[in-house]
Parts: sequence; C-alpha cells; structure tokens
Amino acid sequence: MKIIETIDKMQTEAEKIRLSGRRIGLVPTMGFLHEGHLSLIRNARESSDTVITSIFVNPTQFGPGEDYEDYPRDPERDIRMAEAAGSDIIFHPSAKEMYPEGYQTFVTVEKLTKVLCGLSRPQHFRGVTTVVIKLFNATKPHLAIFGQKDAQQALVIRRMVNDLNLDIEIKISPIIREPDGLAMSSRNTYLDATQRKNATVLYRSLILARQLIESGERSARRISDELVKIIAQTDGAEIDYVSMVDTAKLEPVQTLSGEILIAEAVRFGKTRLIDNIILTV
Amino acid sequence: MKIIETIDKMQTEAEKIRLSGRRIGLVPTMGFLHEGHLSLIRNARESSDTVITSIFVNPTQFGPGEDYEDYPRDPERDIRMAEAAGSDIIFHPSAKEMYPEGYQTFVTVEKLTKVLCGLSRPQHFRGVTTVVIKLFNATKPHLAIFGQKDAQQALVIRRMVNDLNLDIEIKISPIIREPDGLAMSSRNTYLDATQRKNATVLYRSLILARQLIESGERSARRISDELVKIIAQTDGAEIDYVSMVDTAKLEPVQTLSGEILIAEAVRFGKTRLIDNIILTV
Repeated sequence: MKIIETIDKMQTEAEKIRLSGRRIGLVPTMGFLHEGHLSLIRNARESSDTVITSIFVNPTQFGPGEDYEDYPRDPERDIRMAEAAGSDIIFHPSAKEMYPEGYQTFVTVEKLTKVLCGLSRPQHFRGVTTVVIKLFNATKPHLAIFGQKDAQQALVIRRMVNDLNLDIEIKISPIIREPDGLAMSSRNTYLDATQRKNATVLYRSLILARQLIESGERSARRISDELVKIIAQTDGAEIDYVSMVDTAKLEPVQTLSGEILIAEAVRFGKTRLIDNIILTV
Repeated sequence: MKIIETIDKMQTEAEKIRLSGRRIGLVPTMGFLHEGHLSLIRNARESSDTVITSIFVNPTQFGPGEDYEDYPRDPERDIRMAEAAGSDIIFHPSAKEMYPEGYQTFVTVEKLTKVLCGLSRPQHFRGVTTVVIKLFNATKPHLAIFGQKDAQQALVIRRMVNDLNLDIEIKISPIIREPDGLAMSSRNTYLDATQRKNATVLYRSLILARQLIESGERSARRISDELVKIIAQTDGAEIDYVSMVDTAKLEPVQTLSGEILIAEAVRFGKTRLIDNIILTV
C-alpha cells in the first residue's frame, strides 16, 4: 500500500491511474477508523479498481471551542486497518499542506447548511465542502463514498457536486451500529462508562419514532414530543435538536408523508453525538 | 467544429479527449468576441491539442442594476470567429443549464476580492470564481487562459486554483488594445462617439504613470494625484478607482518598489471601463 502526503504526488499518481483506465474510489475520513469507515472502504473496494482512503482531521470544519485539538488521532493504526479493509492508497496530508499561509478560498452551500447541525455549528459545513472539494481535486476520484451517519453532510455534498458539476459519483453507505444500537463514531471514545450506556437513547428514540409512525401517528409535533421526553429523561443528555425534515430541502414537516429524515443531536458533557433514520411514510 | 450545449455532453467529450492523451486548453469567455479573446484562443491553440472556447454570459457575476440583460450577445458570429482563431469546440450552455432551480453553491476567495473592483461590485468575484470552477469541471482542461485586462480576476482565479488544488495550469495573456490605446472590451460597444474618443484617457493615464516612474517618482500618492487629475479633466469621465497595489496581495503601496499593479476603473455614462499595467520598479 502507498502512503502519500503531498497534493502534488497524489495528483500525479491519480492522473496515472485515470489514464490507465482504472476507476478510482475515494473514502474521505478524519481517521481514528472504526467499523463504519471500514464498511465505506469495503464498499469502495467493490465499486472501483483503486481505493484511496484520505485521513485528514480538517481544522476548517471545527468551530472555536470545538474539539479540533482533542479529536482522536492514530494514523499508524488507521493505515493498518485501511489496508486490511482493501485500501490501495492512503492520502495523509498535513494541515499546512492543505491550508498553507495565505489560504482564503471557501466553498459554501447556502441553504441546506442553515438548518439542523448548521444552527449550532455555523461554519462547519463550509469547512466540510471546502475540504471535500480539495480532496476531490487531489485524488481525482470517479466515485466517493460517505456515511449516512452524517445525513446532512451527505446531502450538502451531493448538492455541491451537482451545483459545481463535479463529474464524481457520490454513494452513501448505511450507518454501522454497536451491538446496543449506538451509531459508530470516533467521538464515542470521549464518553465515560455511564455516558456510553446512556448514549443509546439516541437510537432508542429513533426506533420509538419508527414505531409511532408504524402505528399510524403522522403528527411531527406529537412524535417529536415523545422523542424529546425519553431523551430528556436520560441522565446527562442535553438536546441540541430533534428534527423531522424532508430529505430534499431539509425543511421541517408538520404532517409526515413521503421520505422523512428524523435527525437528532444530543450532548453528553462536552461530547456531541448525532444519529438519524430515513423513513418512507 | 463541435458546438456543445449541455454539461453532460461536454464532460463525456472532455473525458474522451483526456483518455486519448490529448491536452485540453480552455478559453472562458462571455462571448461577443473581439481581438483580445482571439489572442487567448491562439495562445491556447499553441499550448494544447484541443481548444475549447466557452461562451456564457454569467448572471451571477453581475450585480443588481448592472448590465446583464444589455450585455452584447452574438453567438453565431462568436462561433465563426472562434473557429477561425483555432477553437475545436464551443461550449455554449444556457443559464438554466448552469444554474438550475435550487442552485445554491458558491466559491469565494475572501481577501483578494475585497479591494479594487470588489469595492464597487461586491458579489462580482464570487460569481466569477463560481462559474470558472463550473466551467473547469465541465470542460476538464489541462490549461486555461485568461486576459490580463481583468488583472484582479486573473489573480483571484490563480488564488482559487492554488487554494482548491485544481490541477490546471493558468496562463494570463497580455492586453490587446485598439490603435489609439483603448483596451479591447465587449463593453466598448456601449460608448457613443465622444465617450469612445475620451475613453483613451485610461491608457494615456497609465502611460503617464509609467513616465513618472521612469523619471524617478516613487510616491504612489503623487503619481495617483497626476492620474486622477488628467482623468478628472476628461469630459464625462467619472473615476471609480485609481490604485497602486502589490501584485501578490493587492494591498496599496505608498512607496513604489518591486512589482506594482496600477489599475483603474472609470465610468463614462453607464459604461464602466477598466485598464491596468504591471511595472517592475
């Protein structure tokens, strides 16, 4: 497996691969890989000839006071895991390589980023879209794979790809969960034992929403009230948002019909967890 | 010569050309071609195997009340001229093809766009960088050529290309002038006979600046005062700006040294003209 640390070398390698007629699949990650990332790499392995995994903790998507410095990092372990899952190349640039002095260009998706996570993390998606287009330009993929865990991110990236005419297929892979239902996340390592146990309330509340809908409930407010109730009853849980929105524009729905994204963000201490399900009503 | 009107077809064609090992040169234009554009096309002809000329009057780079509706258009004449100058493909999308309903993604270069033309046209460069990246993604060039007439635009695009890691060589071609020195521009057609005659003051003032510098003057303020004087004395001329800035950050210089951009924007009636020279002091 190749490990590439500069954009120049990555582009030269990617151009060579493209000219040989091989299909490049990219899995962009912030490292500290877990089973969720590995499922993306396996997915890329099946749908492309050369799999590139990028490992880069992107400073521009963290707000002031967020966990950029504390974000868990273990590139050596990541490299072993990515190789075992079928990655051919690791692209692992430094922050200085990605954002040299004088850097000043940003990509903004205007509407989809103003809701849900965009409310409590106002510059977050600007950082995401900017780094993603940089990673695309560095690795020149035919296909890129993102996780459904970050549902809003997936929609924002699809929108950017369409709007800016990037000739790249975007695939979204399902959420991978721990045996007790907690969505896998590098940030789960922040949780202490009690928080870890209580954090299952995110998935339990989503299952409750599904049950309510299956039993005929169509009022977003009534379902939302139930979800808020069981989360608020959980020790240490502080709700950022619980939202029911359409999957095209992420606008709140009152009466559920069509494809609905139920998304939530809940803090346990300083750890902010997100989870979601998409249901067709 | 091929005329392509959709992004999909353009990408398919561009990918085929790239896979055949040929080098694509792109000349982005807003049409109504003049000798300045043709020099860009000839320049692309010399440095690439396949020359694509794009013709697109880009709505997002015009502000409210500016001349988007009135901007001169003659695609049939443009196509004949571009072909004669050596273009192999014309990419001529509609506004709806480029900005379909729901469009919401923009690329912003933050600092370089806040000065010079950015002051009187605050959203202009956001429109330029956005459309340029869209044209790049549609035509997949190895090389793109822009005119020195739009000096700030050239710097902003270079900055975007570097910052976003676009693997595209950017070439800047010299200003092409009418016999009396007026920089060629599609907007010159707006001028009546008197305005057209008086518009030569832009170039004359730049020549004066060069003479002052050659005779030893180094004070930006004193040179600027002289330029403002001869422009202000000209019937119908209204100064937007006369600036002396460094060519890296476009920051004003007090005492001239190194590479200096002298740039000006002057209105004649509703027509806004720009011109510039770069001097090494």
